[in-house]
Amino acid sequence: MTAPSLDIVAIGNAIVDVIAQADDQFLHDEGLAKGAMQLLFSPEEAEMLYAKMGSAIEASGGSAANTIAGVAALGGKTGFIGQVANDQLGHVFAHDIRALGVDFTTPVREGNPPTARCLILVTPDGQRTMNTFLGASQFLSSKMLDKGLIERGAILYLEGYLWDPEEPRAAMREAMAIARAAGRKVAFTLSDGFCVDRHRESFLDLIRGGEIDILFANEAEIKSLHETHDFEAAVEATAAYVPVTVVTRSENGAIAMVGDQIYSVPADPVEKLVDTTGAGDLFAAGFLAGQVQGRSVQDSLVMGAVCAAEVISHYGARPEADIAALVAAKLA
Amino acid sequence: MTAPSLDIVAIGNAIVDVIAQADDQFLHDEGLAKGAMQLLFSPEEAEMLYAKMGSAIEASGGSAANTIAGVAALGGKTGFIGQVANDQLGHVFAHDIRALGVDFTTPVREGNPPTARCLILVTPDGQRTMNTFLGASQFLSSKMLDKGLIERGAILYLEGYLWDPEEPRAAMREAMAIARAAGRKVAFTLSDGFCVDRHRESFLDLIRGGEIDILFANEAEIKSLHETHDFEAAVEATAAYVPVTVVTRSENGAIAMVGDQIYSVPADPVEKLVDTTGAGDLFAAGFLAGQVQGRSVQDSLVMGAVCAAEVISHYGARPEADIAALVAAKLA
Repeated sequence: MTAPSLDIVAIGNAIVDVIAQADDQFLHDEGLAKGAMQLLFSPEEAEMLYAKMGSAIEASGGSAANTIAGVAALGGKTGFIGQVANDQLGHVFAHDIRALGVDFTTPVREGNPPTARCLILVTPDGQRTMNTFLGASQFLSSKMLDKGLIERGAILYLEGYLWDPEEPRAAMREAMAIARAAGRKVAFTLSDGFCVDRHRESFLDLIRGGEIDILFANEAEIKSLHETHDFEAAVEATAAYVPVTVVTRSENGAIAMVGDQIYSVPADPVEKLVDTTGAGDLFAAGFLAGQVQGRSVQDSLVMGAVCAAEVISHYGARPEADIAALVAAKLA
Repeated sequence: MTAPSLDIVAIGNAIVDVIAQADDQFLHDEGLAKGAMQLLFSPEEAEMLYAKMGSAIEASGGSAANTIAGVAALGGKTGFIGQVANDQLGHVFAHDIRALGVDFTTPVREGNPPTARCLILVTPDGQRTMNTFLGASQFLSSKMLDKGLIERGAILYLEGYLWDPEEPRAAMREAMAIARAAGRKVAFTLSDGFCVDRHRESFLDLIRGGEIDILFANEAEIKSLHETHDFEAAVEATAAYVPVTVVTRSENGAIAMVGDQIYSVPADPVEKLVDTTGAGDLFAAGFLAGQVQGRSVQDSLVMGAVCAAEVISHYGARPEADIAALVAAKLA
């Protein structure tokens, strides 16, 4: 087995975020569950919601792609696999991820549907409510996988959200097998509470089958996974099978459980909470970057907290400030 | 003559801004004049610069469109005329301006070129350097003008930038005639120093011909117009022909000259200067909104300063905060 030439290779939705402000009344009127992600199944459904939304900004997003953007900004060598269409938003997504130095080789997909977009409504409390039209992203097929790219990454990072559509789910299973065969580790994020509801058995099978080396979740997701209100029990039930379990707890910081040992970090203070989009993604970026840099679990948690704090201080799910400098200052 | 049912109707470039951070070295290497706007004449030229730029965000822009967005946010009744193509970015532009309640009826233009974009490089000092690919915007023709919309606006607001391409220049001349015939006022912004260089004689003809009721400029532009280094002389030479002349002076605030009288306002303080894109556009928005609300020239200047301060405190050229509330607090 050759040594990996990349730190992290991720597979995830290739999405452009469309971010607008909204009030609680709007969420109520549209029947949207605050803080959650719902799927929009047709272009018409996406169009109807978009038409009602306020003026927006567009920024490349996608959960795992945001994480990879963060790892790249922290100096990590990275690759990304995700499906865009041959359209303006697909072009934007590809530009942005390549501009960060990420190895992105997935060919564009011709014809309909268009590139995925996520209509994100940010309420005055900074919470984001996401409405995802998966578009081309849901047609990422096994044949689009760059096997060599997967083999080059020390860690393969997978996004639970992409477990929803059939073709990418099969592609991710194949990618895990490729990574395993090459002696690589597999990291996985549960993504969203409703996503866990939809795929609880699959996710538990992956975990209990020993297929996950590093698991990321938030408090709601890990409780949902084990259908319990007992946070500690949920973490322990996961850590029994997963070498490294990382759970974010919003303003209460985050913990990691490694074997019997629990590590914790407080949330990094922010001057003003603007938009929580990307908080979990950037926490994962900081933690993973710490791990591939050979740092301790504790320092990796600190890196996660610093990156999450940066991304929630502005609109958009990718860092604007120099997070490598922020991390260096924090760990100095 | 019927009373106007709209406050401001603007004609301008229909552009989506593509905003990325860059350092001074990048501007130097690309031969770009900091703070200025240059035109990119081919899609290939735009593509080459885009490929070299960092990860970006996209937000609807266009100078006069930004002004209209600001007037609408301040409660003004507005309309906009500008040309987009039938593509994703054109759809984004139309969505965003309509979401603000702006009457935007210009039909999309089929085929090439695509919707205009402005590649904006923001340096760490907050200055923006703009590189505009005019795309569909340069093909706004007289036949696309909504005559009824122009007649409905108390003030027709025109963007100097749009004087560059031939068809929109003719369209703007026709729009001015329509507005005049309906008994409306005409406001005009000089837009950019290099733009003034390209069209000095035309702009002076408009001014000396008494075709402009309200003129907006910054210090560099008004000096360039009269080819002088003497700021006061340049303002006086303009005000001799223009009833209301408004000149912004960056961190030194702004002045208005009305007849023999000069009014001034200091720049509104900002916690952190992030991105100066849209500063002049939003100053114009505040001033125009004040005028159509029947406020004094002095209070209109204050409104301009408040709006400009808001827009330079974040990325993007349109307001994110509730500028109507900020203005109300300031004038309370």
